[in-house]
Amino acid sequence: MTSAQPEKKKALAYRQTGQPDTLVNVGANVCFGAEKIVLIGGPCAVESQKQITDTARAVAEAGAVMLRGGAWKPRTSPYDFQGLKEEGLLMLAQARQETGLPIVTEVLDPRDVEKVGEVADMLQIGSRSVQNFPLLREVGISGKPVLLKRGMMTTIEEWLDAAEYVLAAGNSNVVLCERGIRTFDTALRNTLDVCAVAVLKHITHLPVIVDPSHAAGDFRYVVALARAAVAVGADGLLVESHWRPAEALSDANQSLTPGQFQELTTECRAVATAIGRTL
Amino acid sequence: MTSAQPEKKKALAYRQTGQPDTLVNVGANVCFGAEKIVLIGGPCAVESQKQITDTARAVAEAGAVMLRGGAWKPRTSPYDFQGLKEEGLLMLAQARQETGLPIVTEVLDPRDVEKVGEVADMLQIGSRSVQNFPLLREVGISGKPVLLKRGMMTTIEEWLDAAEYVLAAGNSNVVLCERGIRTFDTALRNTLDVCAVAVLKHITHLPVIVDPSHAAGDFRYVVALARAAVAVGADGLLVESHWRPAEALSDANQSLTPGQFQELTTECRAVATAIGRTL
Amino acid sequence: MTSAQPEKKKALAYRQTGQPDTLVNVGANVCFGAEKIVLIGGPCAVESQKQITDTARAVAEAGAVMLRGGAWKPRTSPYDFQGLKEEGLLMLAQARQETGLPIVTEVLDPRDVEKVGEVADMLQIGSRSVQNFPLLREVGISGKPVLLKRGMMTTIEEWLDAAEYVLAAGNSNVVLCERGIRTFDTALRNTLDVCAVAVLKHITHLPVIVDPSHAAGDFRYVVALARAAVAVGADGLLVESHWRPAEALSDANQSLTPGQFQELTTECRAVATAIGRTL
Amino acid sequence: MTSAQPEKKKALAYRQTGQPDTLVNVGANVCFGAEKIVLIGGPCAVESQKQITDTARAVAEAGAVMLRGGAWKPRTSPYDFQGLKEEGLLMLAQARQETGLPIVTEVLDPRDVEKVGEVADMLQIGSRSVQNFPLLREVGISGKPVLLKRGMMTTIEEWLDAAEYVLAAGNSNVVLCERGIRTFDTALRNTLDVCAVAVLKHITHLPVIVDPSHAAGDFRYVVALARAAVAVGADGLLVESHWRPAEALSDANQSLTPGQFQELTTECRAVATAIGRTL
Repeated sequence: MTSAQPEKKKALAYRQTGQPDTLVNVGANVCFGAEKIVLIGGPCAVESQKQITDTARAVAEAGAVMLRGGAWKPRTSPYDFQGLKEEGLLMLAQARQETGLPIVTEVLDPRDVEKVGEVADMLQIGSRSVQNFPLLREVGISGKPVLLKRGMMTTIEEWLDAAEYVLAAGNSNVVLCERGIRTFDTALRNTLDVCAVAVLKHITHLPVIVDPSHAAGDFRYVVALARAAVAVGADGLLVESHWRPAEALSDANQSLTPGQFQELTTECRAVATAIGRTL
Repeated sequence: MTSAQPEKKKALAYRQTGQPDTLVNVGANVCFGAEKIVLIGGPCAVESQKQITDTARAVAEAGAVMLRGGAWKPRTSPYDFQGLKEEGLLMLAQARQETGLPIVTEVLDPRDVEKVGEVADMLQIGSRSVQNFPLLREVGISGKPVLLKRGMMTTIEEWLDAAEYVLAAGNSNVVLCERGIRTFDTALRNTLDVCAVAVLKHITHLPVIVDPSHAAGDFRYVVALARAAVAVGADGLLVESHWRPAEALSDANQSLTPGQFQELTTECRAVATAIGRTL
Repeated sequence: MTSAQPEKKKALAYRQTGQPDTLVNVGANVCFGAEKIVLIGGPCAVESQKQITDTARAVAEAGAVMLRGGAWKPRTSPYDFQGLKEEGLLMLAQARQETGLPIVTEVLDPRDVEKVGEVADMLQIGSRSVQNFPLLREVGISGKPVLLKRGMMTTIEEWLDAAEYVLAAGNSNVVLCERGIRTFDTALRNTLDVCAVAVLKHITHLPVIVDPSHAAGDFRYVVALARAAVAVGADGLLVESHWRPAEALSDANQSLTPGQFQELTTECRAVATAIGRTL
Repeated sequence: MTSAQPEKKKALAYRQTGQPDTLVNVGANVCFGAEKIVLIGGPCAVESQKQITDTARAVAEAGAVMLRGGAWKPRTSPYDFQGLKEEGLLMLAQARQETGLPIVTEVLDPRDVEKVGEVADMLQIGSRSVQNFPLLREVGISGKPVLLKRGMMTTIEEWLDAAEYVLAAGNSNVVLCERGIRTFDTALRNTLDVCAVAVLKHITHLPVIVDPSHAAGDFRYVVALARAAVAVGADGLLVESHWRPAEALSDANQSLTPGQFQELTTECRAVATAIGRTL
């Protein structure tokens, strides 16, 4: 093998001259990378059937076209709530049946990819797994749409190299998700990197969405950051919302109420229109 | 003096309950902090009378209401072009006379504050001077409107403490300018911190504007970042523009042509309208 | 379960009043956390039987008491050399047999823990896996000594929480390895955080070692950083060395020759003596 | 002027082939850059004649050969103690007379350089002033020895460019002082960058010293960091010490007592000997 071949292959994640944007379809009605900005809502973690279904209904009414919710949760401490696992997956499926929203949920372990892939419409690779290469290979082989979150200190190049692991396995259904980076500044949990969105739209053909909730870590700033994300050119938004945030088992402080989620939709829709897109 | 007094004084930069936003007026027609977003254009450095006047005319036609241009330039290396100094100041005054645009220019040395203040409508404190306390005191005493740029490494708290030096000297005409922070990421020169804008609008009554040119360091991303800045809630934009960027003595790569500046105005105006403001 | 119980459990990684330092034994002769500083040498990756055996002999002669070498390599790009895998593991075992050095090698995938654990004396969790929680649980269950590298972006608290995953599974044989953090500075690949070593020796009972090779990314600085690591209080050093660095398939630029490795041993031994330890 | 000339001039701070290390002499007996490591002690700020004289005596007895103490203090907040100014300068002179220790003190304002230079043996440029170009030019013109601290987020290249401002004014008496950089990690106030010391000793002929006190911000870690600084190759140490730390008006938490300062001297002297130097 010559050294030129890997270089050529590496072009999978990078935009080639004249190459059109990749569209990633999820379920029957969701398409990432098109003119319509994709709004994903839902809680950090699935906690009960009622919680996930009621939240799904609320975000659907407020404009979300897709449901998020964690069944396996990567927690910094082993003593924190780790998710309802298989049981949570079934609750997500039930919420989908009742609302029609396709579901995206995180997979943490390469041994779980097949199991989660049988239920989920899209597999999320979380920030801490962005360089979990065995896991990336498995979701690549699965062929399922992949939501690849940026790590807290991952460069754009490393991130695209991570995407390359999925693409190299023959799966081109990759959506990148900027979620805030770790910097010296501690005013908010992370610093939302709108520059990364602008650069990625220039150098890759893959869709790029933004998670303003994890960047802010504070519900008061989520709507403003979501507007900025739409304005800079993001193809979608991943927003934490909870039926009753005060009762959430995790990320309570950054979850929007249904009313706040509706406000986000209204404001972001106006910005989307201003830049010639829809939401 | 009791320890409680300093705490009370410190409230000058922080928003008190019910306190209205501070409006900073510059010249007869510019007001920072009001419903209308203030667009400032102009070159990195004043290079010649023709360059500054022609650029001023171009940005005025494209919607700018204020002119920027450096006469004293803080350069990383002592061997780089350091600005035309007093001569550049006179050229700025001439450009103002011909276009009606008030001018903002940087002052680097406390010994120059009086001299620069006699000509400029607004004094800029650059990123490298954000904790130059003798300089902050002098611009405070001058009473002139101050454009206080964030340092590349300055926390929001340190930045407001820097503003406090100006405010404590009796000068409340302070406008904060986010211009990108230094992070691990090197895709662009700096990382534009839209989170800081959102947080500042919450905790301070002072106007907050954004400089997308220095954040990006690359003209191709300036318009997208400017849209994000408007969407997140910035009260103004400071944008580098040059009559003929390719001939610029500094920052050539991040300067917009008059045509690109017009495009920025058009796109940001649409976003401003979408969020209930004007530009 | 009351909320107090998790807090109590969390104390596993943190030093309790009066708690002695944990000693982690590997093989018959290596003990981390004791007065003698543990010197580990070897190549980035196992490349051939001759390469690993000759390097093992060279570092053993130069004072190393343990051999490192990667059989599974986590590479940023999917097109880079990924290691010799099972074959590399057998080569390591052969090198151990010929030199008597116990071996530490990285495990990337929870599905490989049992297989790697059957051969290796110590399992390395690499920087990119520091928050790979399923993997941490598996090495915890394995009971094997674990070398837990800090992530490039991991705070000390997050790192100890990662160790807690191993400890909570009943495995207290955890050695922490500082290997440089990602900062704004790009003079070297990473910034070796000697502060972290000083803090960890204060707050945890677990042994702490330093990898100066990955911090520097440049062989010219490895010896100086190793001296600093010993001086600040590290319990060991993990140093990349290669029989013939110029021929290395990875990390060639940071690998020491046998002669340089000998120099490192001599200099670090003098520093160790100065602070009342041995090496 | 051709573009080649500035490049040639820039070589002033960078080591040329075969160029010997620069020695910076201060007072009759202190020499930075030689085999003997220079130990500087003293308080953050001069607070009273008794405080500075007693502290000077204590650090002199414990091995310090030079006295530090701030008369003008750059404080984040305008309401914090700003130093005794001219009065403090006189107290430093008095302490020098009684102990024989030459003094280094910070100058903040270009208008004060002449006044401070008449009394101080060495002028300190603080972290916040590292890119205060008018100030750098003035200390360059003064010809006095300059202690140039690194900014909290200054790259090595920017730092040497700052030194170049002094050198270009004809003053080659520049000593660089690493004092910790700002990173994502918040375990200590800053992260001491020992890599920078190693790199600087390679690329510049100027002496490099380390301030472990500001890096740590916590007296418990100062001695360990000082040992690391000596081991990595620093030419000196700048250590905060106070006659009675609990009564200090600033930096109380990072100041060593005379007893702790003696411990630092003893331990660092042993490490110095181990690497073939003295202290």
